[in-house]
Amino acid sequence: MSRTFEEWAQELVQAGHILYAQGMVPATSGNFSARLAPDSIAITVSGRHKGHLTTADIMQIDAVGRSRDGKRPSAETALHLQLYRRFPDAHVVLHHHSLHATLISQFEKDRIIFENYELLKAFPDIDTHASRMEVPVFANDQDIPRLAKKVEKYMIAHPSIHGYLISGHGLYTWGDSVETALKYVEAFEFLFKCELMKRGVRSP
Amino acid sequence: MSRTFEEWAQELVQAGHILYAQGMVPATSGNFSARLAPDSIAITVSGRHKGHLTTADIMQIDAVGRSRDGKRPSAETALHLQLYRRFPDAHVVLHHHSLHATLISQFEKDRIIFENYELLKAFPDIDTHASRMEVPVFANDQDIPRLAKKVEKYMIAHPSIHGYLISGHGLYTWGDSVETALKYVEAFEFLFKCELMKRGVRSP
Amino acid sequence: MSRTFEEWAQELVQAGHILYAQGMVPATSGNFSARLAPDSIAITVSGRHKGHLTTADIMQIDAVGRSRDGKRPSAETALHLQLYRRFPDAHVVLHHHSLHATLISQFEKDRIIFENYELLKAFPDIDTHASRMEVPVFANDQDIPRLAKKVEKYMIAHPSIHGYLISGHGLYTWGDSVETALKYVEAFEFLFKCELMKRGVRSP
Amino acid sequence: MSRTFEEWAQELVQAGHILYAQGMVPATSGNFSARLAPDSIAITVSGRHKGHLTTADIMQIDAVGRSRDGKRPSAETALHLQLYRRFPDAHVVLHHHSLHATLISQFEKDRIIFENYELLKAFPDIDTHASRMEVPVFANDQDIPRLAKKVEKYMIAHPSIHGYLISGHGLYTWGDSVETALKYVEAFEFLFKCELMKRGVRSP
Repeated sequence: MSRTFEEWAQELVQAGHILYAQGMVPATSGNFSARLAPDSIAITVSGRHKGHLTTADIMQIDAVGRSRDGKRPSAETALHLQLYRRFPDAHVVLHHHSLHATLISQFEKDRIIFENYELLKAFPDIDTHASRMEVPVFANDQDIPRLAKKVEKYMIAHPSIHGYLISGHGLYTWGDSVETALKYVEAFEFLFKCELMKRGVRSP
Repeated sequence: MSRTFEEWAQELVQAGHILYAQGMVPATSGNFSARLAPDSIAITVSGRHKGHLTTADIMQIDAVGRSRDGKRPSAETALHLQLYRRFPDAHVVLHHHSLHATLISQFEKDRIIFENYELLKAFPDIDTHASRMEVPVFANDQDIPRLAKKVEKYMIAHPSIHGYLISGHGLYTWGDSVETALKYVEAFEFLFKCELMKRGVRSP
Repeated sequence: MSRTFEEWAQELVQAGHILYAQGMVPATSGNFSARLAPDSIAITVSGRHKGHLTTADIMQIDAVGRSRDGKRPSAETALHLQLYRRFPDAHVVLHHHSLHATLISQFEKDRIIFENYELLKAFPDIDTHASRMEVPVFANDQDIPRLAKKVEKYMIAHPSIHGYLISGHGLYTWGDSVETALKYVEAFEFLFKCELMKRGVRSP
Repeated sequence: MSRTFEEWAQELVQAGHILYAQGMVPATSGNFSARLAPDSIAITVSGRHKGHLTTADIMQIDAVGRSRDGKRPSAETALHLQLYRRFPDAHVVLHHHSLHATLISQFEKDRIIFENYELLKAFPDIDTHASRMEVPVFANDQDIPRLAKKVEKYMIAHPSIHGYLISGHGLYTWGDSVETALKYVEAFEFLFKCELMKRGVRSP
C-alpha cells in the first residue's frame, strides 16, 4: 500500500471533516494519524479546527515521534505510537472526543461491557451478537508517556481489543484504513449511545 | 410495474443514502431489497457502507435466494424472501438498525403496543388514532432460516402487521415501493422515539 | 398584499421542505395553508411527503372549505378555516407533528404553562420573560368540525393565544406570513423541548 | 488588525449562519458584535433571523452604544459594551440562546462548576483536565444596564472568566476573533450537554 504522504494527508483531512460534521471533535479536540511506512507517520498538528483541516495541518513524524518536517508534534503522539507498535496491521489511528464517549467514560471506572448487540459483528473476531466486548477506561493523565505504558500493559493482558476510552477525554480506535477506523468509530458511538440511554431510561 | 434491474438498484442506492444520512444504518449494518419479478430480486451485497452505495453494491437473486450474478447473497436474505412470499403486494423490504429500534427492542420482550397516536394513520387499515398497533419483537438468532420460520408462524396468526423488530438488531418493514417503505420507516422511528422518551420522562 | 396563488404555493412548498428537514412532519403528516384573499385559501393536498412538495401539491379552497380546483380538500381543513375566521390578520396556518409537540401534548391534560423564558418575547404582546404563556391541549378527535368548535369556544374565552396542541397529534400555529409562522414554530419547539427535558432531568 | 466594517460584518453574518444551523439561535434570538476600533463596534440589528443574516443586518455603534448609522441598537448592547471595556483583547462577543444553555441556567442558581473535562483545555489559562472552571448564572433582568453592572461587579471579583449565563436566556462569551469565540461556544455547549445528561442519567 505505497501511497504518498499527500494522499494519506488528504484522507485524514476528510476523516476530520466527517467527524466534525458529526459533532465528535468540538473545540479543536481530537487527533488522527496514518502510518505510511515503518518509520513515517502522518499526524494532525495540535489545536486545529478539525472541520476546517487542510493538508497543511498534517505533519510527518518518525516511529518514535520526532518531527520530520519542523512542525511541533502533538502531546498525544505517544498514544498513537504505542498502537502502531502493538498492531502491525494498523495503518490509521483516530482519537475523538464525542459527547457520548466522554460521558460514558465518566460513568464506568475501569471498563464497559457490551453484550447482545448485533452491531458487535462490525468488529473483527466477533461473529455473533452473543459475544461480549470489553472496552477499558483509563484515568485521564497529562503525562502521556505514562498513560501509554498503562495502555500497553493492559493490551498485553487483553490482546482482543478494538478501542479504549480515557476518562473525560474520549476514544482511541484504529484500523487498517481510514474507512475501517471510521466504521469502528460509528459502531462504538452507537454502543455508547445505547448504554447511556439505558442508564436514563426506566420502565413506565 | 416493469422496471429494469438498474432502475430498482438506483432506488435502493438512494434509500441507503437517505437512511445513512439519518443515522439508521451505522457501521455497514442494514440491508434493502426490491422484487423486480416473481423470480428476480435486487438486494444489497453484505457489508457495504450504506451511505456510499452504488449500483455495483446491488446484486440479483431468485425467489429462493440463489445468486443470479455470481455475487454472494447476504445471510439475512431468508428474511426478505419470507416477506415476499407472505405479501404479494410487497415490492420493497427495508431492514435498518437505528438506535431507537435497537433500544426499544431490548426493552420489550415479545411485542410493543402503540396507541393513541395520530401518526398510526400512516399505516394502511388504520384510520383513527384510537387504533392500536402491535409490533412483535423476536429474539435475535444467527440461524436466519429458523428466525424466518418464527416470523412466518407469527404472521399467520397475526395477519395485520406492518413491521417487526429483532431484539438488539433492528426493524424489518416492507411496502409496494421504496417511497411507501420509507414512509413506514419514518412512522416507526417516530413511534419508537416517543415510547423511549416516555420511559425516560417523569412528571415534575 | 396581492400575491398570486403561485407565489403563495411556492412559499408553502418551502415551508414544507424546512419543516421536513427539521423532522417535524414525518410520514406525510402536517398541513399548511395561506389566505390569498377573503374567499381564497391555498392549502396542501392530503398525504403528500412534505419534504418533496411541489406547487402541484397545493390546492385552492374557498372560505368555507369547498374545492376551487377539483382536488380533494384535507380532512383537517376546518381547523385552518376556524383560525382564518377568528384572526383577520392571519395569512398563514402551519400544522406540524413534531416529536416534541406530540409528546408534550400527551403529558399535559388541558394546558401547558410556560414561564420565565426570554424566548417568550418571540410572541407578540409579550415583552418580558416574567410573562406567562398558556398553550391549550385538546383531546384528539376524528370529527374535525366538532374539534374546531371546541377550539373556537376556548379562543373566545382566551383571546391571547398563539398556538394550540392536539393530544398525540401536534401543533397548530399561525401568523401574518410564512416567516412569522415559522418563527412561532421555532419558538414553540424550543419551549416544548425545554419542558420535556425538565421532566426527565433530576438534580444529581 | 485593521479590517473594514464590511469584512467584520461578513464574519458576523457567517457566525450567525453557523449558530443558526446548530440550533443555537431560534426564533430570531441571539446577538453578535465585533470591535473594529476603540470607538467603533459592529453589532447585529435586533430581531433578525440569524440564519438569514446579510451585512444589511449589521449596524455600527460607538463605544457607549450610540448608533453611527441611523439604525436602532439592540436592547442588549450594554452587555456587549461591558465586555469590551473589561477585556481589551476581546474583539468579538457572541450571545446565543441554545436549548442547553437555557436549561442548565435554570437548574443552577448562582454558578456551575465544570471539573475533570479534558475539553476545559480549550480555554486559555487551563492546561490540565484537573482544573475547575466556574460559569456564573445571573438572574434574567429586562433592565439591561442594571444587569451589566452586576456582571461587571462579579468580574472584578472573579477575573478568570470565559463566559456567563443569564437564567432562562442564554450564554455570553467573547474572544479575540470570531474563530476563537466560536471555539468557546462549542466547548461551552459540550460542557452544558454533559452536565445536563448527567442529571438525567442514573446507574442501571
